[in-house]
Amino acid sequence: MSLKNLITLVFEPDGVKSKFRKGTIILCALKEAGLNIRSECGGRGVCGKCKIIVQDALGFSAVTDAERERLSVSELKSGYRLACACSVLKDAKIFIPEESRVITRKLLIEGTERPVKVKPTIRKLYVKIPKPSLSDIRSDVQRLQDSLKDIYKIEITEIDHTLLKKLPRILRNANWKVTVTIWDEKEIISVEPGDTVKKSYGVAIDIGTSKIICYLSDLTNGELVSTGSLENPQVMYGEDVISRIAHASQSDASLKKSQKLVIDGVNTVISEACQKSRLGLQNIYEITVVGNTAMHHIFLGVQPKYLGLSPYVPAVSGPLNVKARDLSIKVNPSANAHVLPVIAGFVGADAVADIVSTGIYESDKLSMIVDMGTNTEVILGDKHEIVACSCASGPAFEGAHVKCGMKAVTGAIEKLQINPENYEVSYRTIENAKPMGLCGSAIIDAVANLLKCKIIDRDGRFADAPVTSRLKTTNGTKSFILVSREEGATRDIMITQKDIREVQLAKAAIYTGCYILMKRKNIKPADIKKFYVAGAFGNYINLENAKLIGMLPDIPTKFITFVGNAAGAGARMALISKTQRQIAASISRKVDYVELALDPDFQREFALATCLPHRNLDRFPSVKNLF
Amino acid sequence: MSLKNLITLVFEPDGVKSKFRKGTIILCALKEAGLNIRSECGGRGVCGKCKIIVQDALGFSAVTDAERERLSVSELKSGYRLACACSVLKDAKIFIPEESRVITRKLLIEGTERPVKVKPTIRKLYVKIPKPSLSDIRSDVQRLQDSLKDIYKIEITEIDHTLLKKLPRILRNANWKVTVTIWDEKEIISVEPGDTVKKSYGVAIDIGTSKIICYLSDLTNGELVSTGSLENPQVMYGEDVISRIAHASQSDASLKKSQKLVIDGVNTVISEACQKSRLGLQNIYEITVVGNTAMHHIFLGVQPKYLGLSPYVPAVSGPLNVKARDLSIKVNPSANAHVLPVIAGFVGADAVADIVSTGIYESDKLSMIVDMGTNTEVILGDKHEIVACSCASGPAFEGAHVKCGMKAVTGAIEKLQINPENYEVSYRTIENAKPMGLCGSAIIDAVANLLKCKIIDRDGRFADAPVTSRLKTTNGTKSFILVSREEGATRDIMITQKDIREVQLAKAAIYTGCYILMKRKNIKPADIKKFYVAGAFGNYINLENAKLIGMLPDIPTKFITFVGNAAGAGARMALISKTQRQIAASISRKVDYVELALDPDFQREFALATCLPHRNLDRFPSVKNLF
Repeated sequence: MSLKNLITLVFEPDGVKSKFRKGTIILCALKEAGLNIRSECGGRGVCGKCKIIVQDALGFSAVTDAERERLSVSELKSGYRLACACSVLKDAKIFIPEESRVITRKLLIEGTERPVKVKPTIRKLYVKIPKPSLSDIRSDVQRLQDSLKDIYKIEITEIDHTLLKKLPRILRNANWKVTVTIWDEKEIISVEPGDTVKKSYGVAIDIGTSKIICYLSDLTNGELVSTGSLENPQVMYGEDVISRIAHASQSDASLKKSQKLVIDGVNTVISEACQKSRLGLQNIYEITVVGNTAMHHIFLGVQPKYLGLSPYVPAVSGPLNVKARDLSIKVNPSANAHVLPVIAGFVGADAVADIVSTGIYESDKLSMIVDMGTNTEVILGDKHEIVACSCASGPAFEGAHVKCGMKAVTGAIEKLQINPENYEVSYRTIENAKPMGLCGSAIIDAVANLLKCKIIDRDGRFADAPVTSRLKTTNGTKSFILVSREEGATRDIMITQKDIREVQLAKAAIYTGCYILMKRKNIKPADIKKFYVAGAFGNYINLENAKLIGMLPDIPTKFITFVGNAAGAGARMALISKTQRQIAASISRKVDYVELALDPDFQREFALATCLPHRNLDRFPSVKNLF
Repeated sequence: MSLKNLITLVFEPDGVKSKFRKGTIILCALKEAGLNIRSECGGRGVCGKCKIIVQDALGFSAVTDAERERLSVSELKSGYRLACACSVLKDAKIFIPEESRVITRKLLIEGTERPVKVKPTIRKLYVKIPKPSLSDIRSDVQRLQDSLKDIYKIEITEIDHTLLKKLPRILRNANWKVTVTIWDEKEIISVEPGDTVKKSYGVAIDIGTSKIICYLSDLTNGELVSTGSLENPQVMYGEDVISRIAHASQSDASLKKSQKLVIDGVNTVISEACQKSRLGLQNIYEITVVGNTAMHHIFLGVQPKYLGLSPYVPAVSGPLNVKARDLSIKVNPSANAHVLPVIAGFVGADAVADIVSTGIYESDKLSMIVDMGTNTEVILGDKHEIVACSCASGPAFEGAHVKCGMKAVTGAIEKLQINPENYEVSYRTIENAKPMGLCGSAIIDAVANLLKCKIIDRDGRFADAPVTSRLKTTNGTKSFILVSREEGATRDIMITQKDIREVQLAKAAIYTGCYILMKRKNIKPADIKKFYVAGAFGNYINLENAKLIGMLPDIPTKFITFVGNAAGAGARMALISKTQRQIAASISRKVDYVELALDPDFQREFALATCLPHRNLDRFPSVKNLF
């Protein structure tokens, strides 16, 4: 029972899990786990750079005077600690905030965006307004409206209340020469001194379960100016959507806390993007937001509880316009946040954005989109009809529930190959750092290679006889050492029997989603002429390996396109084009949601799909000859 | 120099001014001044009922422990003190809040309202919504909208964000049988369990310079249910609109403070009206607001600075819809506040409401409205054309700037008559209390009677020889004792030469406004077929006396109608009828504002009108024979 005093720490957002002795100083634990954190003073409690956030204060030693000096009251309240001054007492989760990190996460920000005609909801117009006099006593707003009508022939009847409060001073300080920002041809939302017509910007926000990304665009020409990104700070409340829903549903206070975390994250990424392009927050006049339905609800502060309970219906599905200030988003105080519509409880605004950005809704060709993540959305259709479903693929491909799994950050193995002759492993890590673990794409590679080398069979079982010394048995459980400590890894990096089971479940979930949709439309893989792979880690996967393990249907590689963050691309398109918003709204109403669990074949199909690549090899003609 | 240590205190909202020795305990000062305040413990610092509000903390002794115990932190911050624990050090103004008062103010709440077809912007509908199931996964909002469409054939696309947040729980707790409140046929603003269709209420708010009144109406039938009223707490910053503008224009913080005072006042009157009718604040779904332009701007938090600077233009003149919660008004959180339009910097939404409630905009008969107050609005017109102006009549008729003047509260003389034979004075006080001073109507009576009795001449000068012992000369200044201390008054109640000058200026201002408008339209008093007297004290004046001193044009009494609080009546009409709001909006655009100061005849006409009743007696044929 020497493990009795060992405590498990999970470090977020990397998801690294490790055991330590009770009382270990967090800074030492981080070093032991091979994670880097800023610590300019070397752990003397002086620099205040090694900030961490703890979820449950009781799991740690009491706050010290050094911490009270270096951390603000609000930080202390939010669970901030200094890693060098705080030791661990119980199993706990620790979040390393952006500011304390020295490694960079490999985040897929780009998405394939189709060109659209720039037609934002924002319009800036320069006007010289006649000054008031005793013979012209029209109100400030009236003369502004009259000037717009005289010069631009438009009648704008509404004015934002927050702007109105300051309008008299703005107009007079500007000597009645101002630039007016109009929202949706109906509301005046900003008035600025001088001619600032060319300074018109907006941000598209993609709120993923694991990351928040901001795309700052120039609304005069639609061009992407800069980006910002951040791990979703909600990871404190769980990796997957279900845990987030469960946490936010506990009480109104938990929901508020969850919402605040997301909003804080959104503010951070917007501010990062603005800083990169040296723009003031007040120059952001419009926001579009996409995310899965749970993130969508939590972002809006809407109860997500019933998303997690059968029949999993969202509170709201149509598009929403909310004043950014009502969501505490720090941009121009009168800016509007346009939240894209969702399709169902588990097919969100991100899926709608996928459909918008790939354009499958207007294509003659039958297309499929697989947007991979903790939940994987599968969409199938063309201009006539679209069906969609959600697969509970789980976080295995994000590195969770896999012994040596980790997120795609510095030190993660992202590609690997096993030599079928000598079982030697060649690999590549992110940033060519010392290998620390396996990210999603390497996990797929590992399983595919083990299968090819016949170290595992089609049921995922390790070979009975050890074909190589890399195949080890510990406590009756087999595992394959990919990179040992001796070979230069920070720890023995391996794939266990349990890991392979996790991958089988995950890939079966995705494949079954694809299959059920094809069955619904009564089509075969050969009928699919366009296959889009989207999602944060999608771009990095080896397609042949993915097909070999049966994760994707057997579609010719030439028909497959990586579209990266397609949801973000859709959000950007909706930002710069009102037409795209209307398209998104009509898509959300038109798509037929398929509840997989209700399909009579689902259970059987899922079971068949857990086999590598599938129980029925006829479904994978291109790899059939390998077996 | 025995007066050196005497300090002047002004008690608001009654406007009583008196001198006291430095160090006097406020509770004693109040008693000396004949003002009553709650003090259940008799001044022992125990009951905490004698709350007062001081404007400048430095003018008073330090806060005591007793006060710290009885007053909340927020009260202490807002300048609350206990009258029994606080003594005066400097000249100061003290506000006695509603809760501490024992006297009731004679407030004119009623206004003549014309019957209108009830057509509120609020509509409540009961719906039974099909429950979600795995085969019907429409979102909560969608199924709500679909049910409204199925049952009532209406398409409502918007939903208030604050409501949306709680919607999933409301629907499920109500077992999907709910009453939906729809605003303006376009936004769902409330969803309540069960059938509450008949519980639909709204409030009309009249924000006057000196008072705030709330009219709570049943929106199903338009009937008035209850009222609430309060002195405008802004009186701390001055009696008249100009002082209020000056104060609120000092800084953004002063504006916020002024706005908060009005909003607090509005919340108080709404809550009073709700309590009287045993209604919850959440049953108030709509608000209409009227007030003069300065109150309108301050209520909205809009900079009123330029209202006070030539050319006196408002920031905004059109009608506005603002969420009540954005103004911190405590009613249903999704209620809308509709603020009626204004005409000019000194002709506000109250004047628009006067025009709506009297209906002169649709009349064939040429009509004039005089809405008396610190500013008096004069409106002249018919269905073809309307002109309006504002007269700086000042607060004389509200009791300010007049030695023994006071507001129309208990103890004020409201009517009086001087016997021309023996100069004896008969009078009536409000609530038949011991006479304390003169309110506006009695001031008019006094001047008119002194003129009739020839104690003053047409120039307002007191007779040289004392015709009665009531006419006294003190320090070279003449005054007429109306009720002496010996006759039972709390002090010698008199009219001084200076008081008469104040009245002459005030009445000349009103008359000149009426005259300039008539001149503009090239008409004579005989052409006016309807003359409406509106305003808080309007109903109590003796019309013959008002004409005798030349305050109103010489119109036959049969053509004159008292309409009381016509502005409040207009606000109520706009509350229960959307049509009336549209009428108000079109009125505000159509009315021609006349800037009196720009009229070439103004100065001369004003001077002629200071004479009693007028320098040119031909303008007052009906009283000409008296002189």
